[in-house]
Amino acid sequence: MTFEVTILGSSSARPSIRKHHSAHTLNAYEQFYLIDCGEGTQVRLLEQGINPLKLQAIFISHLHGDHVFGLFPLISTMGIMGRKTPLTLFAPAPLDEILEYHCRYFDARLPFEILYRPVDTCRHAMIYENKVMEVWTIPLRHRIPSAGYLFREKVPPLNIRKETIEKYGLGVAQITAAKRGEDIVLGDGTLLVNNELTYRPFVPRSYAYCSDTQYSARVAKIVEGADLLYHEATFADRDKALAKETGHSTTLQAARVASMAGVGKLLIGHFSSRYKDEQELLNEARTLFPDTWLAREGERYQIPLHRVE
Amino acid sequence: MTFEVTILGSSSARPSIRKHHSAHTLNAYEQFYLIDCGEGTQVRLLEQGINPLKLQAIFISHLHGDHVFGLFPLISTMGIMGRKTPLTLFAPAPLDEILEYHCRYFDARLPFEILYRPVDTCRHAMIYENKVMEVWTIPLRHRIPSAGYLFREKVPPLNIRKETIEKYGLGVAQITAAKRGEDIVLGDGTLLVNNELTYRPFVPRSYAYCSDTQYSARVAKIVEGADLLYHEATFADRDKALAKETGHSTTLQAARVASMAGVGKLLIGHFSSRYKDEQELLNEARTLFPDTWLAREGERYQIPLHRVE
Repeated sequence: MTFEVTILGSSSARPSIRKHHSAHTLNAYEQFYLIDCGEGTQVRLLEQGINPLKLQAIFISHLHGDHVFGLFPLISTMGIMGRKTPLTLFAPAPLDEILEYHCRYFDARLPFEILYRPVDTCRHAMIYENKVMEVWTIPLRHRIPSAGYLFREKVPPLNIRKETIEKYGLGVAQITAAKRGEDIVLGDGTLLVNNELTYRPFVPRSYAYCSDTQYSARVAKIVEGADLLYHEATFADRDKALAKETGHSTTLQAARVASMAGVGKLLIGHFSSRYKDEQELLNEARTLFPDTWLAREGERYQIPLHRVE
Repeated sequence: MTFEVTILGSSSARPSIRKHHSAHTLNAYEQFYLIDCGEGTQVRLLEQGINPLKLQAIFISHLHGDHVFGLFPLISTMGIMGRKTPLTLFAPAPLDEILEYHCRYFDARLPFEILYRPVDTCRHAMIYENKVMEVWTIPLRHRIPSAGYLFREKVPPLNIRKETIEKYGLGVAQITAAKRGEDIVLGDGTLLVNNELTYRPFVPRSYAYCSDTQYSARVAKIVEGADLLYHEATFADRDKALAKETGHSTTLQAARVASMAGVGKLLIGHFSSRYKDEQELLNEARTLFPDTWLAREGERYQIPLHRVE
């Protein structure tokens, strides 16, 4: 029941030898999701031992090159590897047009289908779900339409408290009803409220990714209580005018969102290449939100499962 | 008077952690030329300490993604870095259309001009020259229109043999005439043939790049006498049927071209990812052309200047 984020790239628009363009993966129950896809993402996946054919879906935050230029070569390589499984791609428009144009020249005979799902960057809405997880959009405030993504584990089904089975002599039908959330009335008329019979085996986990964005109180509300928040912090606080002008956040603004939202842990990244000492940026964010960490490439951030009982 | 090739990437279509897509640079007299531009080229340039703003021109062999996907992010980064100098780009059509489309979405306000020069991949022609060098196309035989490039140092101007000045009492006008290649008639009617008075100070150097191609005798003729030949060798000799089918060469075919052309040294690369042991491929090529080497990423191959006298 893994729920783990792996940072593949965390640079801002100008990459360096050690810092690549934005990309990371979420491993949710051994299903892999790619979030943003800057140049070189396919090689970063190889470095992390993640087979591109295992990617279930790709989520692109916005159509700036440093978040999407790795997509075209990645798709090519998946074609060469013989991918047959359709690939679901969430991204703001018009990525479908751009991809179609690209494929016409570079991948006319792709052996798998790309299921493009346009993302409305103005709405906070559920865009994907499977048995264990939902994905919601987070409207961001950048220079072009941009969305973050909130990955939220579903509330687990109710478990029966084993000791109550013997205590009240519950039959199969009663146990099934209790697991559905119903109260039970025993043969002698005793009412057993559901709460007494069942429990949720764990607390659902969540991960929020806030790509390029200005400070936004609305974002803070949406990511409330997330276990892990990645929030861009392109600038130091002293450069907040520049942050506003370019549609980005400062360290303190990222920390303020984390603090208002009461998240568990904050990862900051996407630093402007003008800052040589990232520790300073980290220290600045920590003055407001102590549990802040640098999004380091190649590092994995596991969100542990908190079992109940 | 450097004449040096630096390999940035030498993988075939499927990259690996250590082998990136095709790209290399030629440093000719401290002017830098980029030849092919696979994904990640901008980071490879940084690793080699080559400032992208110093690139004079880019030469693209053909429009397969593994030779060109790094161009879009590289151009973006040059924009961010504030490049003002126009960038000359040689490539088969329709790279101009593709780039224009790309820039419309991703780099609408590029601060420099791209001077696109379409390459006719059927002709062997001079497409570029400056004071010290000429660049010629090499028609290749691949699945799509493809050209290699031959970089040829110009024949240096004649130098005067210093000892003749005193010996014959030559004046400034006579020296200038001799340097132009003229014979000199002395006052007493003696004829001095130019050859006796002057010499070429060095032998012009040349580097030939044969990107994806089947074996071609015409190529061998064009690259005749090159000091350094990079020739793709995607397949081992046992897979020559596959090479032909996919428009590629084998180790022995690359070696045959080198041998027929009488080149100084052969670099082979672009190996299919199916071969785990590149040494075997190298050994195979060496059976036919002993001075063969693997095109290793990050390595520099200097073509030394052979001074006359």
